This record gives sequence, C-alpha cells and structure tokens, in this order.
Amino acid sequence: MVERSGNGQSRRGFLKAGLAGGAALAGSLAAGRVLAADDPAITQIQDWNRYSGDGVDAHPYGMPSPFEKDAVRRNVAWLTADPVSSVNFTPLHKLDGIITPNGLCFERHHGGAAVVDPAKHRLMINGLVEKPLVFTMDDLRRFPRVNKIYFLECAANSGMEWRGSQLNGCQFTHGMVHCVMYTGVLLKDILAEAGVKPAGKWVLAEGADSAAMTRSIPMEKALDDCMVAFAMNGEALRVEQGYPVRLVVPGFEGNMWVKWLRRLEVGDEPWEQREETSKYTDLLANGKARHFTWAMDVKSVITNPSPQAPITHGKGRLVLTGLAWSGNGTVARVDISTDGGRNWKPARIDGPSLPMALHRFYYEMDWDGSEMFLQSRAMDEKGFVQPTKQQLRAVRGANSIYHNNGIQTWYVDTNGAAENVEIS
Amino acid sequence: MVERSGNGQSRRGFLKAGLAGGAALAGSLAAGRVLAADDPAITQIQDWNRYSGDGVDAHPYGMPSPFEKDAVRRNVAWLTADPVSSVNFTPLHKLDGIITPNGLCFERHHGGAAVVDPAKHRLMINGLVEKPLVFTMDDLRRFPRVNKIYFLECAANSGMEWRGSQLNGCQFTHGMVHCVMYTGVLLKDILAEAGVKPAGKWVLAEGADSAAMTRSIPMEKALDDCMVAFAMNGEALRVEQGYPVRLVVPGFEGNMWVKWLRRLEVGDEPWEQREETSKYTDLLANGKARHFTWAMDVKSVITNPSPQAPITHGKGRLVLTGLAWSGNGTVARVDISTDGGRNWKPARIDGPSLPMALHRFYYEMDWDGSEMFLQSRAMDEKGFVQPTKQQLRAVRGANSIYHNNGIQTWYVDTNGAAENVEIS
Repeated sequence: MVERSGNGQSRRGFLKAGLAGGAALAGSLAAGRVLAADDPAITQIQDWNRYSGDGVDAHPYGMPSPFEKDAVRRNVAWLTADPVSSVNFTPLHKLDGIITPNGLCFERHHGGAAVVDPAKHRLMINGLVEKPLVFTMDDLRRFPRVNKIYFLECAANSGMEWRGSQLNGCQFTHGMVHCVMYTGVLLKDILAEAGVKPAGKWVLAEGADSAAMTRSIPMEKALDDCMVAFAMNGEALRVEQGYPVRLVVPGFEGNMWVKWLRRLEVGDEPWEQREETSKYTDLLANGKARHFTWAMDVKSVITNPSPQAPITHGKGRLVLTGLAWSGNGTVARVDISTDGGRNWKPARIDGPSLPMALHRFYYEMDWDGSEMFLQSRAMDEKGFVQPTKQQLRAVRGANSIYHNNGIQTWYVDTNGAAENVEIS
Repeated sequence: MVERSGNGQSRRGFLKAGLAGGAALAGSLAAGRVLAADDPAITQIQDWNRYSGDGVDAHPYGMPSPFEKDAVRRNVAWLTADPVSSVNFTPLHKLDGIITPNGLCFERHHGGAAVVDPAKHRLMINGLVEKPLVFTMDDLRRFPRVNKIYFLECAANSGMEWRGSQLNGCQFTHGMVHCVMYTGVLLKDILAEAGVKPAGKWVLAEGADSAAMTRSIPMEKALDDCMVAFAMNGEALRVEQGYPVRLVVPGFEGNMWVKWLRRLEVGDEPWEQREETSKYTDLLANGKARHFTWAMDVKSVITNPSPQAPITHGKGRLVLTGLAWSGNGTVARVDISTDGGRNWKPARIDGPSLPMALHRFYYEMDWDGSEMFLQSRAMDEKGFVQPTKQQLRAVRGANSIYHNNGIQTWYVDTNGAAENVEIS
C-alpha cells in the first residue's frame, strides 16, 4: 500500500500501488533530433551571436547566469520562530557531481551568521593543557595544512520525515547536507602545541557568534581526523560557514562542526551543553533519549527526478541521479527501485569515492511513461544498509527530529511530475 | 647572477645572489603565544559576540565575507586593446587546496561573455556523420554523465615571462589557470549517436558567442576523454565559462575548450582557423612556428609567499605553498629551492592527485629572516621536468607568448616582501 502526502503539512490519503509496468525497459529512444536544412539551429541568429558580451573587467567575483535564478538556497518560514535561529536548504535538485558550490551550501545558525573580522579574531586553547595558548589567523597558517573533501549533514536533515512525508522536494527533505574541499590544519597538531594533560579526555569547541555554540568532542575523534579549517573549495570560508575558522568533524553531525571557532577547552568529561542534551539527542518511544549519536548513518536520495525536478522530456532515455553518503566511510553501493522497493537494480557511482564525502550515483534507464515509485538504498563500506522509514520507526519511534536516514520515495506520474510519498 | 625586475614593465637592474644563509633551518619557533589572564581573547567582547547576524533568508546565493574584498579576479588594462577580447586572472595567492571557486575562475573571451538562453540554445553535429543531429540541453542530459576534476590553463599563461619578468604577482604571471569538477557527457557518446564516417579524423568545435570561436580537435582526443560539460563544481556552468555548455579537452590548452558550444563538425582534416594559425602557435627564433602544440607542459608556481602575499609573521615557522600541474597526467613530485636553484628539497603534495588536475604542494620550513630566492620545480608521471626559463629560451627563443612552463623565481627580502625576479 502506498500512502501519498502532498505539499505542505496535510496528507492526501491513499493510493494503491498497482504499477502498470513501471520501469520496464523499453527500446532505447534516441536523444536529439535529425538536423534539417531549415533547422532554427542553423537559421536563427541570436543576440549573443550578434553582439559582444561583458568584458573581463565587469565581474571581479562572478555570479551564476541570470537564467539560473531557481538554483538558490530556500528556507521554510513556518519551520522556526525566527530566521536568525533557523535553517535554509541546499538545492540538491539543481546540482550535479559531488562538490557543493560555496554560495549554495545550506546554512544553520543559532544566532545569525556572524561577520567576524579575521584580524581581531583569536582562537584560544585552555583547560587541561600544559600551556594555554592564543592563536591569530596568521599563527594557524603556520601549522602543516591538509586538504580533504567531506560532507557536512545537519543531524536534523530529513527530520520532518519521521512523522510522514511533509515537504515536497529533495531540497527540503534532504537539503541540509553539503560537500566541499576543506583546507586547514589538524586539530591534533594544535592540541600537541598546547600539550594535553593525561586527564584530558574531551574537547569543548566554542563559537564566537552570539549563540556561542558549544559542543563536546571526544578526545579520540579530536586526535584522529578533526580539522581546524579556514578555506572551503579553495577560498576563505564563507561567513555563514564560520569565517574565518571552523571545526571540521568528519562524518559526525553538523552541529559539532563549530563555526567562528574561538575556544578549545580540554576537560576530563563532556560538558553536557544545551546542544547535546535538550537538543541533538534522539527521544525514543519509551521516553529515554539516545545521547552522543554523532556519526551520520548511511543515506541516499534521488535528486532527479524529484518533486522540484520533474521529467520534462517524455518517454525514452532517462538519467536518474542522486547522492549517497555515510559517516562511517565510503559508500560501497547504491541500489535503485522504480516500483517502491519490490525490485532493485545497482546504480553506477561516478567520480571520486572518498570517505565521509558525498557520492554521486546514476541509473540510466528507458522510461515507458508509466508511473513509478522511485527509491534509492545505499550501503557503506562497513556493510551498513539504509533502512526503510518503517524499520527505523519500529526501533526509534517517531519522537525525534534527528538522524533519519530512511529510504525516500518519490511517486512519478505518467506526465513525469513527482511527489513525496510514503510506502506503508 | 640574479636579475630583478620590478612591478610594471621596466627592469631594475641586477642584484648579486649572495645568500647569507638563506633557508638554513633554525630552531622551530612556536606558533601562537601563551595565554595570559588579561588576554584580549578573554576580556574583549566583539559586536559579533553581542548581536545576532543575518538570518537564513538573507542570502539565497551566498557571497564571500566583506573582509575578503581582495580575493578577486583582476585584469591588466594595458595588456589588450579592449576588455571584451581580453583576460582576467585567478587570485592564486588567495586560494588553497586544488578547487577554484567558480566566481574566481579566470576569464578569457574573444567577444565578451555571452549570456545564452539555455531554452533557445542548440548543439548541432554535422559534417562527416551518418546522421546530422540537433540537441537541446534536455537532450544532452539524457546521455550517461561523468564527473572529473581538471585544470584549464590558457596557452598564454606566463606568456609575459618569455621576455623577462614583468608582472609582480603569481595572479598575473600564473593566474590563467583554474581547476574545477566538471559534470557532463562524453564527446564520444554524442559522436557515436551521430555516427562518425570512416573519413572523419577531426572535429571542429564552434562557440555561439559573437567571436564564434572555432578550433580543430583531433579525433583521437575527441574519442578519448573529451567532455561536453554543463556543470562546474556542482552547479550550472558560469556565463563566462560557456554557460550552458562547453567543451572540456583535458590537459590541452584552454582555447580548445570551446565555450557556449553550438556546433561540432566532423571533417577529414584540420580547419586551420585563425586561432590555430596566426594565434595559439609558437613562433620560434628561426621564424618557423610550432603548430598544434596542444598539451600543456608540466609546470608549477609558489603561490605563498609571493609578491602579492608577503611573509607577515616574521621569522620561524613558514608554510610555503603552491600549485603544480601537467597536461600529461599526474604530478609525481615537486622540489623547492630557497637559494635560486642551487639546492633542492622535496615538497609534500597534499590532497587528491588526479590526472590533468591541479596538485597542491607544501614545504614547511623555519625561516631565519635572511633573503631567499624561491623556486618550485615539478616533475610529472611521464618523467617530464619543468625547465628553467633559460633552457626554454635556448630551444624556443623569446618570440612566442604561449606555452611558457619555465621555473618561476620570487626574491624574498629580509622583511618578507617578495618580488618577481629572474636568475641568469
């Protein structure tokens, strides 16, 4: 039985999952059409053929084409009380590959995006260290640097899906994830400079914004792969991503990646701050909460077609694409179903397969024009498999808004329009 | 003997290369300073600690911090007659890692940056094919897609260096290179759809801009790794990079990567267009010109320190960094000299090492405050080694403006200021 829910917050009842062939492979229909002598491609002269465009002095820092106005971050006004403690979403349906351009990386702040002067900014290390230290940005650049491509996912990504599908588009259901190349220094090198005392088992990371975001990081992770990063995709961090310096905690929930990082305190136990007790814990059906659920579980989503990106070219060849990721390492495989999980076929992962980075997958098919119930299911290198939402709720109930990695379903109608539905 | 040249076009005479110790390793001086109880890092409250920043509805497409105003593309007015047929330069000294953010990828147009409507744009294939075809952008997205990180270097990058150092900064001497992740389809798949006739040995690529840029691509390359790309770093191509579709010719000179791609003609011989005869050929000392010198030679440059990025933190720990690349594949090694090429030490390559992509290198050292003559020398996986400018001129003369991959020298004075100089 397939339960569909519409755009907004109300459900629209039920639809029987009677698939008339679904994604059965038809004969491959050609892309493109045969060129005729009077084809407009030959005969039409456009303004851009006729007149010169802008010169090289026009745009010191370039922006997207005016025809790409829809490729923007979007927020949902009713989701939070105030936009300064809120979220907006990466337009996953407008993107391809595994790199998110900096201007489209989703934002989540708890006190607005702090515009910090890098000349005045300091990073302090105190607590259980031999030598408390203060670093300028110049000082940080004197440690050996590393470059890594990592995804960052908010723990609340897909959070609305716990209680049934409510938002119609992968931008809203899965758009609290992005993936960039970070440049920075290893946290362990900075800790070594200060000298961690034997009793030091935890690191408190604190932000310089008005929310003074604080999270406890276990020392084992701090000494493993955490970075103190000052660049993303080659350039300085963006304001909304913690300029001039943020913590990078590979594979762990985004809230721990403290932005505008101003202080690292070494301690012997976790601090149990607001954002790791009343928030960012997973309330179970029995009233207890999962605590310190840091690693993001294996997950995937089909980005095209999807509710914001319907099929516009009709039957025949169809390239289905999406993203997969895991906080446990690389993604080993992604399977695709066009009939709501009854049958599965392997997708093709293309591009770099890097630990704790987004993976891009494609599934090339022939669409016969029948309705489909599209799903993707990822498996990571550790063998973890993405569960159905029902499996997830059976274990965790539906109280939480965090760590929902359930399989997503898009219903595609005979016109190619797609909708967020749930299969029960 | 070291010849120094100043900012602009005139040389400033000679300087004896007597190095007083140069880069001799001194004791490692600590980064950072010890925290005091009255440290401003503790006692000062900044506005960004006190007041909320912008909300998530403020910037649908984000831009860099207002403190990063210097990280912009720059053009040199005297270099060309008109900015619509000119170049601007990537600010390499402000970047790190191997990804160039889209807004900072250098521009080179011959008729300005064409703002093309993707709904009206068509890509035609004609000439020696079984079935001439026309594709819409939607059609192109129905071929299987690939994702690749490649550098793009203008053949004229470092062109001013043939006749002595004249521009004071790596942005100007080496900034006609960028590196992004492309998403698109393989040219060979499009050619297969049209069906190349046996006599078809070359492909003419033509742009839709007012310059109608045209270049001949050998069929062997076209059927190898060329892409017809519609995305860069995840999002749609930028206007100035050929939106909505460009050719990607990995490792080959940037001029062949035809932007605003509107036509592919298959032929039995090269077309000998303007941009492959009077331009983009290398005039030798004997009056003959090298023709079809497509692959970009192995090359590197130190981006920091450099004339636009002096050492500002004084003696002690110094992280020297730069970029290396080769049109022949990956970069196998980079060596660093601090004494103008007398002694060499290996640099550390960090991050992905991908064929025909930028490579980031670092060299961590202790600077004793003496003057230095910094050089980097790259070797690619095929064993090609970057030559000195003298070696290059001995073979090719100094008539050309293309394919200069000579070793670059920065003179660093005792204050940390750097200058473009030449060692003779």
